Amino acid sequence: MRAELVMIGTELLLGEIVDTNATFLARNLAGLGIDVFFKSTVGDNLQRGSEVLAEAVKRSDVIIISGGLGPTEDDLTREIVAEVMHSPLQEDKGALEELETWFAQRYDQSHMPVHNRKQALFPAGSKIIPNPIGTAPGFYLEKDGKMVIALPGVSQELKTMFSETVAPVLAQKGTGQILVTRNLHFVGIGESRLAEVLGDLLHEQSNPTLALYASGGIVRIRLACKAESREEGLEIMAPVEREIRSRTKEFLYGTDGQSLEEVAAQFLVEKKLTLALAESCTGGLIGHLLTNVPGSSAFLNRGYVVYSNQAKVDDLGVRPETLEKFGAVSEQCAREMAEGARDRAQTDLALAVTGIAGPTGGTPDKPVGLVYISLASAGDTIVQRHVWKGSREQIKNRTALMALRLLWQLSAT
Amino acid sequence: MRAELVMIGTELLLGEIVDTNATFLARNLAGLGIDVFFKSTVGDNLQRGSEVLAEAVKRSDVIIISGGLGPTEDDLTREIVAEVMHSPLQEDKGALEELETWFAQRYDQSHMPVHNRKQALFPAGSKIIPNPIGTAPGFYLEKDGKMVIALPGVSQELKTMFSETVAPVLAQKGTGQILVTRNLHFVGIGESRLAEVLGDLLHEQSNPTLALYASGGIVRIRLACKAESREEGLEIMAPVEREIRSRTKEFLYGTDGQSLEEVAAQFLVEKKLTLALAESCTGGLIGHLLTNVPGSSAFLNRGYVVYSNQAKVDDLGVRPETLEKFGAVSEQCAREMAEGARDRAQTDLALAVTGIAGPTGGTPDKPVGLVYISLASAGDTIVQRHVWKGSREQIKNRTALMALRLLWQLSAT
Repeated sequence: MRAELVMIGTELLLGEIVDTNATFLARNLAGLGIDVFFKSTVGDNLQRGSEVLAEAVKRSDVIIISGGLGPTEDDLTREIVAEVMHSPLQEDKGALEELETWFAQRYDQSHMPVHNRKQALFPAGSKIIPNPIGTAPGFYLEKDGKMVIALPGVSQELKTMFSETVAPVLAQKGTGQILVTRNLHFVGIGESRLAEVLGDLLHEQSNPTLALYASGGIVRIRLACKAESREEGLEIMAPVEREIRSRTKEFLYGTDGQSLEEVAAQFLVEKKLTLALAESCTGGLIGHLLTNVPGSSAFLNRGYVVYSNQAKVDDLGVRPETLEKFGAVSEQCAREMAEGARDRAQTDLALAVTGIAGPTGGTPDKPVGLVYISLASAGDTIVQRHVWKGSREQIKNRTALMALRLLWQLSAT
Repeated sequence: MRAELVMIGTELLLGEIVDTNATFLARNLAGLGIDVFFKSTVGDNLQRGSEVLAEAVKRSDVIIISGGLGPTEDDLTREIVAEVMHSPLQEDKGALEELETWFAQRYDQSHMPVHNRKQALFPAGSKIIPNPIGTAPGFYLEKDGKMVIALPGVSQELKTMFSETVAPVLAQKGTGQILVTRNLHFVGIGESRLAEVLGDLLHEQSNPTLALYASGGIVRIRLACKAESREEGLEIMAPVEREIRSRTKEFLYGTDGQSLEEVAAQFLVEKKLTLALAESCTGGLIGHLLTNVPGSSAFLNRGYVVYSNQAKVDDLGVRPETLEKFGAVSEQCAREMAEGARDRAQTDLALAVTGIAGPTGGTPDKPVGLVYISLASAGDTIVQRHVWKGSREQIKNRTALMALRLLWQLSAT
């Protein structure tokens, strides 16, 4: 079965918004084992929309058309499908009643605006796709061996309606084979180094296939195979995953949806370890990431964003002599920040970072991107030195990532 | 002049990545006054790629094809353009030398891998588009009144090459009219309320056109018109912008690329005001946002991430009786946090937030999403109470936004 996406909306052609709907649909169709060979995007225009849909119907079995289901004159998807599929529009009584109820419940005025009446029109022979969170119902129409599925452009509505109604319908029509994927996440190793270590697997492996992606200091390997069920797919992939793990385990921190902060948080919670933070150049980013994890109050006692030298002295007990002799961006200062935070907060661990995020403030000795990261625990304080390249935000992100990595690495010791 | 985009890459059809290249190209073509009527996406496949390009050449004047210029067998854009435009591939000596130089400079081994030689092939009659930051040069080919422009899929390369080479070439071919846009950013007012206040403008206005977008607590109005120059466009839009400002000025914080943290930071720097932060539920997010602004060390003295009650007492002098009587999420605690931070850091201002980010920890009296924000200054401490709906991250974001808004609002007093 061959599927194709038709995205309707002038705003997509103006570059006003990034088309994440197409990404969602493509990923989910792949998950159902349905190949997508084409995607077309066209503006809110009856003639051009019809041209594109006609082409799609010619070459594909299932066409998902997204957008253009709203109540305004610019919303033309109903008309486009009616024309291309030779199925004139008809008003659906049930849908009209639901629209009226929706407006009555939502607004004080108990009647629906006249132009919303249009949203109860569907090409003859269509089945309605309920929209539990908005006014625009979708529909699908099967005719002459082709299936056209119309969904709204509002992301949350499209996602809900696809998952609740479209996916089950398509799963029944599918081959039975689904695409099963598994993601492995790495930190502290570059994409090219990882490609070297896993070169033979990357080149020779066809079931599962392997692909490498890198972004913002994290490298991801995606394993994918076709199988009858998710369980069968994971079984096919298990030996390859084991082999990858055996070669890379000190860098492999998580799988699928896991983030590094989640893995680090989980470790701290399990070991009942408490943590204090002392952030200079990251400005609170490490605290922000860790507190994105629900339940982080179980381990995070407090953080100090010591942006000024005075704060480093006041709040963490960094010695003025240290700042004078070595500067705020130094191994010595990082160490005193970590130890001071641990002492003050009376926690098991304290993590400190100090560095130059730029774009100004660098010197030949201490360039923009120079960062010290320190982790203090009961017996020991370690300090790492890094020099990152990139923008201010990239340097902050990379620093936070490597600081979280230090926490995660404790789990291996 | 009518342009069309053809994006090549199986990964785009699998939903592995979001197609931000298309967004970039669409926005920049609009900025050059060039209409984009169609965008097609197709996998790494010679036949299907050629079909799509042939269709594009039939209906548009300028076609930008992106992706598929790498050195592997899957990279087929050269072949696709050669076939559709009837321009056989030829090796370019200069390009070959540049490739060899690039590899010699970059790697220890001084010779180029054999398969990279492919990257010096171009359809006959092409002009080469230099790639200053990667191995894949692009090209453009003008023939029979049509122009096909091929760029790599790597975003940074595509953007650089478009801006440096393609945009100037297209600007010369354009009508002279360009699309001029202006964005106005609002905080503290909802999309539907803003639509009400500006209803007549939104409906009656056609030059410039107005469009409303909302996301994460920020509403944006986009003004757009066609003009001979940016200056002329801004002049056409000025009266409409003035009218919008006169009705909404307490919510309108910035224009075009400005963020709320930038506007707040700029105000603090200009007025030479210093700031301390005391964050509970946001966990460091406010500090992170403010320190994304270069030069933030001029005003940000320090921050306290007081996640535990003990930290609120130790570091900010919140009274244990306050915590016991009113709880950590209370007007009283927020006030003591702000005043304590200001006192401890000896700053002009201190901003404090405390709340329940969820997903657990709510009670009927104090639900998830309840937040207090306090701003302490020399004469006065104010406290705001909010109840947000949404996920943990949405509640954190909304809280940070409204805290930054308090800083920005000082500029109006």
